[in-house]
Amino acid sequence: MTQKTFATACILILLTSAVYAQTKYYQFVDPLIGTEGQGNVIVGPSCPFGMIKPGPDNAKNANNGYNADLSLPIFGFSQVHVSGTGGGAKYGNISVMPFNGALNRIKQTSTGQSEVAALGYYSVLLKKGNILTEITTSDKVAIYRFTYNKIGANAVKLDAGEFFNEGFSTDAHEAQFFVGSEIKVLSDREVCGYNRIRGGWNAGGVYTVYFHAIFDQPFFGFKTWKANKLYPNQKAQFDSGEKTGVLLSFKSLRSRKLQMKIGISFISTDKADENIANEIPGWKFKTVLKQTQMKWEQLLSRIEIDKQTSRSYKRMFYTSLYHSMLMPVDRTGENPSWKSTLPYYDDFYAIWDTYRSSHPLLTLVDPNREVNIVNSLLNIYQHEGYMPDARSGNSNGRTQCGSNAEVLIADAYVKGLKGIDYELALKAMLKDADVPPGGNEEQQGRGGLYDYKNLGYVSSAYPRAGTRTVEYAFDDYCIAVVAKGMGKTAEFDRFSKQAGNWKNLWRYYTDHGATGFIMPKNEEGHWVDSIKCTVPPYRNIAVTPTYINSGQCEDWWSGFIYESNPWEYSLSIPHDVAGLIKLSGGKQPFQTRLDTFFFKHFYNVGNEPAFLTPMLYHWIGKPELSSERILNIIQDNYSDLRNGIPGNDDSGAMSSWLAFHMLGIYPNAGQSYYLIHTPLLAESILHLSSGKDFKIKAKNLSKINRYIKGAKINGVTLARDWLEHSEIESGGILELEMSNKPSAWGSGSFPPSMQFK
Amino acid sequence: MTQKTFATACILILLTSAVYAQTKYYQFVDPLIGTEGQGNVIVGPSCPFGMIKPGPDNAKNANNGYNADLSLPIFGFSQVHVSGTGGGAKYGNISVMPFNGALNRIKQTSTGQSEVAALGYYSVLLKKGNILTEITTSDKVAIYRFTYNKIGANAVKLDAGEFFNEGFSTDAHEAQFFVGSEIKVLSDREVCGYNRIRGGWNAGGVYTVYFHAIFDQPFFGFKTWKANKLYPNQKAQFDSGEKTGVLLSFKSLRSRKLQMKIGISFISTDKADENIANEIPGWKFKTVLKQTQMKWEQLLSRIEIDKQTSRSYKRMFYTSLYHSMLMPVDRTGENPSWKSTLPYYDDFYAIWDTYRSSHPLLTLVDPNREVNIVNSLLNIYQHEGYMPDARSGNSNGRTQCGSNAEVLIADAYVKGLKGIDYELALKAMLKDADVPPGGNEEQQGRGGLYDYKNLGYVSSAYPRAGTRTVEYAFDDYCIAVVAKGMGKTAEFDRFSKQAGNWKNLWRYYTDHGATGFIMPKNEEGHWVDSIKCTVPPYRNIAVTPTYINSGQCEDWWSGFIYESNPWEYSLSIPHDVAGLIKLSGGKQPFQTRLDTFFFKHFYNVGNEPAFLTPMLYHWIGKPELSSERILNIIQDNYSDLRNGIPGNDDSGAMSSWLAFHMLGIYPNAGQSYYLIHTPLLAESILHLSSGKDFKIKAKNLSKINRYIKGAKINGVTLARDWLEHSEIESGGILELEMSNKPSAWGSGSFPPSMQFK
Repeated sequence: MTQKTFATACILILLTSAVYAQTKYYQFVDPLIGTEGQGNVIVGPSCPFGMIKPGPDNAKNANNGYNADLSLPIFGFSQVHVSGTGGGAKYGNISVMPFNGALNRIKQTSTGQSEVAALGYYSVLLKKGNILTEITTSDKVAIYRFTYNKIGANAVKLDAGEFFNEGFSTDAHEAQFFVGSEIKVLSDREVCGYNRIRGGWNAGGVYTVYFHAIFDQPFFGFKTWKANKLYPNQKAQFDSGEKTGVLLSFKSLRSRKLQMKIGISFISTDKADENIANEIPGWKFKTVLKQTQMKWEQLLSRIEIDKQTSRSYKRMFYTSLYHSMLMPVDRTGENPSWKSTLPYYDDFYAIWDTYRSSHPLLTLVDPNREVNIVNSLLNIYQHEGYMPDARSGNSNGRTQCGSNAEVLIADAYVKGLKGIDYELALKAMLKDADVPPGGNEEQQGRGGLYDYKNLGYVSSAYPRAGTRTVEYAFDDYCIAVVAKGMGKTAEFDRFSKQAGNWKNLWRYYTDHGATGFIMPKNEEGHWVDSIKCTVPPYRNIAVTPTYINSGQCEDWWSGFIYESNPWEYSLSIPHDVAGLIKLSGGKQPFQTRLDTFFFKHFYNVGNEPAFLTPMLYHWIGKPELSSERILNIIQDNYSDLRNGIPGNDDSGAMSSWLAFHMLGIYPNAGQSYYLIHTPLLAESILHLSSGKDFKIKAKNLSKINRYIKGAKINGVTLARDWLEHSEIESGGILELEMSNKPSAWGSGSFPPSMQFK
Repeated sequence: MTQKTFATACILILLTSAVYAQTKYYQFVDPLIGTEGQGNVIVGPSCPFGMIKPGPDNAKNANNGYNADLSLPIFGFSQVHVSGTGGGAKYGNISVMPFNGALNRIKQTSTGQSEVAALGYYSVLLKKGNILTEITTSDKVAIYRFTYNKIGANAVKLDAGEFFNEGFSTDAHEAQFFVGSEIKVLSDREVCGYNRIRGGWNAGGVYTVYFHAIFDQPFFGFKTWKANKLYPNQKAQFDSGEKTGVLLSFKSLRSRKLQMKIGISFISTDKADENIANEIPGWKFKTVLKQTQMKWEQLLSRIEIDKQTSRSYKRMFYTSLYHSMLMPVDRTGENPSWKSTLPYYDDFYAIWDTYRSSHPLLTLVDPNREVNIVNSLLNIYQHEGYMPDARSGNSNGRTQCGSNAEVLIADAYVKGLKGIDYELALKAMLKDADVPPGGNEEQQGRGGLYDYKNLGYVSSAYPRAGTRTVEYAFDDYCIAVVAKGMGKTAEFDRFSKQAGNWKNLWRYYTDHGATGFIMPKNEEGHWVDSIKCTVPPYRNIAVTPTYINSGQCEDWWSGFIYESNPWEYSLSIPHDVAGLIKLSGGKQPFQTRLDTFFFKHFYNVGNEPAFLTPMLYHWIGKPELSSERILNIIQDNYSDLRNGIPGNDDSGAMSSWLAFHMLGIYPNAGQSYYLIHTPLLAESILHLSSGKDFKIKAKNLSKINRYIKGAKINGVTLARDWLEHSEIESGGILELEMSNKPSAWGSGSFPPSMQFK
């Protein structure tokens, strides 16, 4: 207790009270999981889908501003972060930094130590000045508590000019560009201002983060700055396109502690102030923390898992749920671009990453939230013309491959989600499918659409032609699903046919014993063996099934396959696995092909197109091999350690994948069923929003008893190795009889392909 | 002097001091010209290209908020207006209204009388309460002087929620939509806030008008409001997506007068405050007015006209110059979307309207300003991907027909304007020409571009196919001009060829004795006699040379020809008049065709595509007929009366057309020459930015001596009836020898066609 005070000890007790009381699920959440390695998750606190995500910044170009190596000096704690993303960074706005000393230097940094991260809470001791910084948060407001262990010149810097990944030339790739900032000292306890930025990973338009900060004790001196020049006692620095901020000095702090509430808004500083008044009217750090814990607890407790589960699995599972509910971000009431009573979500980053498992998981845990998210996409379509594939800082972009918002709509539709205008949704999908997005084909809609509509595939003249064709075909399947359900025959006919367009790029090419791959074809309909790189020096690059374009064609955006290769993407036909098996030569060749994929390490655990691939054995009647792959993948790659997420978490995509597989069911998004496989958890109960429960129980599950030999649903034998969403929704129990050797269970049943109900 | 005070009388003297002193050019400007009828020009004051344009609003859906019928009650004086536009209204933000009485009603209106409008000055007496409201302005700040002729409860309303043409459903056509507003009482003399709106004529994204207002005397009471509810003494109404404002009450005003300075900004309220500090630090209404008069005087005096000119012609000429320099609006330093050291202009409304005469006029009067405007287009291209055809509220859109920014670039290039990066400009033009703009083809770039590139014309499947084809061909000519000059052979070859694409829609169709018209052709290359309307009920509409789609196809946007018909647009081939004559059957049939056009009243004086048409006689060697047409058109349509502009002034397009023709020269934009014809002014001197003068002198000009019988340039006989820009730039004198009968002058010379230097 030399450096941490009694109050901090109380917080630690609050955080770890599991020892003494009823265990809470949130206590199994460890925000540190995934903060080392490539996970890129936020280490700081956040409410579910919370708008403010305060946290430490010590790496200006890291996606979340954070590097687990605390010998890299922390330069501030900013209020807006994204979690788990890759590519160029976004946000990092409105940076706060406590320090000791005179107000004569704008740059203030310190290395950190004794980091504590728990759900809703983060603290670090800043070595310079020995200042403990603690943070907790509500939805739009953070509360900071600084403990200045050195008496004397205690100060805080509020930086309205700081942000991540600054670019200086308009060509700077995925960089953020400074537009303007403002700072204003309102009283001896209050400061407001804003930071205005454009660009970032999604090459978005301008966004403004406004803030209002209130201290619990008065500052007695201040200096504002503009363009690196300090102005003692000048209360305001108006926006002349320069970076601004303020240094504040305090004295005689009560118990050497200073608290600061900081509200943010995308509307105005006054709205930020109002957010404080609404969310954190008082000064009780612990109360705020507790409220945030309870918000999470409500969600996490929707899935109750076997109490006997190992602590490590509990931590992995609940942290996965937590990571799945950080993004997109709920900005309802904070949309600066139009007025609407519909919900507003931002930071879809990107739907290509999250459609497979994140949204299906949310549909089970909190379907009303998923309805709101889909409605926010429709609202964006109504006001800006297209739904996003990705969106951040109030701007659609960048579209990675397809118009995958279609999958969310189909998923909602087949799972019977109410409260969505599906007529409007169909319109929004048809816009994607029919109207080329224009000059910037990465902003929204479908790039290369003329080709796709005229040729049935995107020709090699376009970047990402392979991925685009495959994703568009799947998106078209999703449109057909909704059209069919709504009795729109013409649309159903058109899009169910187009759902087979992936076959137009299926070339009978043999590689590593497998035949048939998604390969490039030119506008004249001829297969081509190389593509022209779209970036200088525009070399021709040979395309083979194992070709990787990264490093040759600058980045994933310019090759034939996005973030993958033909080996991987040729197995990513989620709506027509039966068709894929047929084109691959039948069941046996397909099994060989899958085995090759895993054994030759073509499988990339961190990549979304391969999310379903381990489960494809289900379609050849060998669900035991699916289970085998999944168990091995998790064992080899995931853990509850700081490097426990084996790739960018991608807004929770990887975490949600893990959560499903721990339960023993895995969805195929846009379709109404879940594949059943060996779970990691012996028993789980889904407390559904309807009030009903659905239990998954794997009897006698152990490391040895890892094979399903039989299944029952509500006591009735289940021969098939998949489950309908309606069966879960009806409540009941899925019992899996486990065994120590493979069985014939599931060998005679094959999950749906090209199913239209 | 019962209602106007002594100070007002001083203003009137200031405004009309011509009587007593050296006549100033600005005194010939009458802002009332064009405020009745269809002119739609602003009646309120503005600096040249000024950002703030305060003025009275008594017509919520009028383009400039104003109706000359003052029996329609004025509901406020808003700070942002556009001048001369048509279509759905834009702006009308931050409304001020003086009134008498208790602070218990938000709605405050009054009819007006005794309106005075002069350059930089506007006043009206509000009948209710007998309040004189006077306004003058600097670039970004207005100063109001209210004289309350009734003693008692004197009050001012500041409305942050008001704006024009409000839409309530997302389908509302060209409407503006409310997004948010905020109001804050800062002290007993200061109020700030903002108004946030999207949409309007150009279907633009969100824009925010911030303001800061300062009074010269304290208010003693106030009530803010939100959503129609008044809140006594509540200082701030934050933005919750509702309309807000404040009512202020004053007492014991000095001499019953109250002054208010209001600064606006598109960046922040503090920037608005800073704009006040920079532009109007003091309280001298007269000083501000004088400064604005002097800014204008500097520009207007660049063209000195014969002192003997009739007062009516002087008023027409200088008011035309004035109207030509109101838009686009200089918002350098006020771009909320990105940071740049380049100039920033907004309210291009639209370049389709202004490319023909407004920009060429500015190139003569203030070439540096034209350079800045072109650079601002390039800056928009660099940050948003395309140059605009129209832009307002910081958003590109709507594109009327072509990508006519090309014309401005070519015009600058052929006239040798320095300070433009023509390499960058060529890139920006090639983007228009090669990359389809996408889902919203009215936002920017070229709609129907796939057709145009593949077929050589825009097929009848697209709206405005005729206009688009013709304008694209001209735009391509402009690209070829620049490419040629810069030695880009491949681009020159491609675009000089495409400049002939208008011929692909030339159908040998006979109507009213003329053969050959721009007519619709389908994708298969067949002529079609009707087009499908793009709006419900999607009827087929017969297309003939005289067909007018307005009223049948909802509006101009959905027909074959925009704002015109094939008769008119088939004569609008400004880069290849010789080619047009050839396809029309030669000189004699062409003359007959032109005569028919004018005598059968197919000519529409208020429509830009016909701006050049009266001059086409030059290309058949009959410049005297051009002069004849021009003189008749002006005489029949233009005057110095309030209805003296015979159509929407279109950001000064019509005014600049008039100004050129009064001088006796008319440009053909994108090309380096001016056509010479009979002027209305006997003598004019262009004081060029180089310091040189160029004089145009029509010797013995009179109503009878209306024919040019000979011309000399610097004393040397000029046989041709056109003049190179370089000849003007070199300085000197063009002398026209006038006669009372037509002569052979010009009959042997033909202005250039398809000229590439």
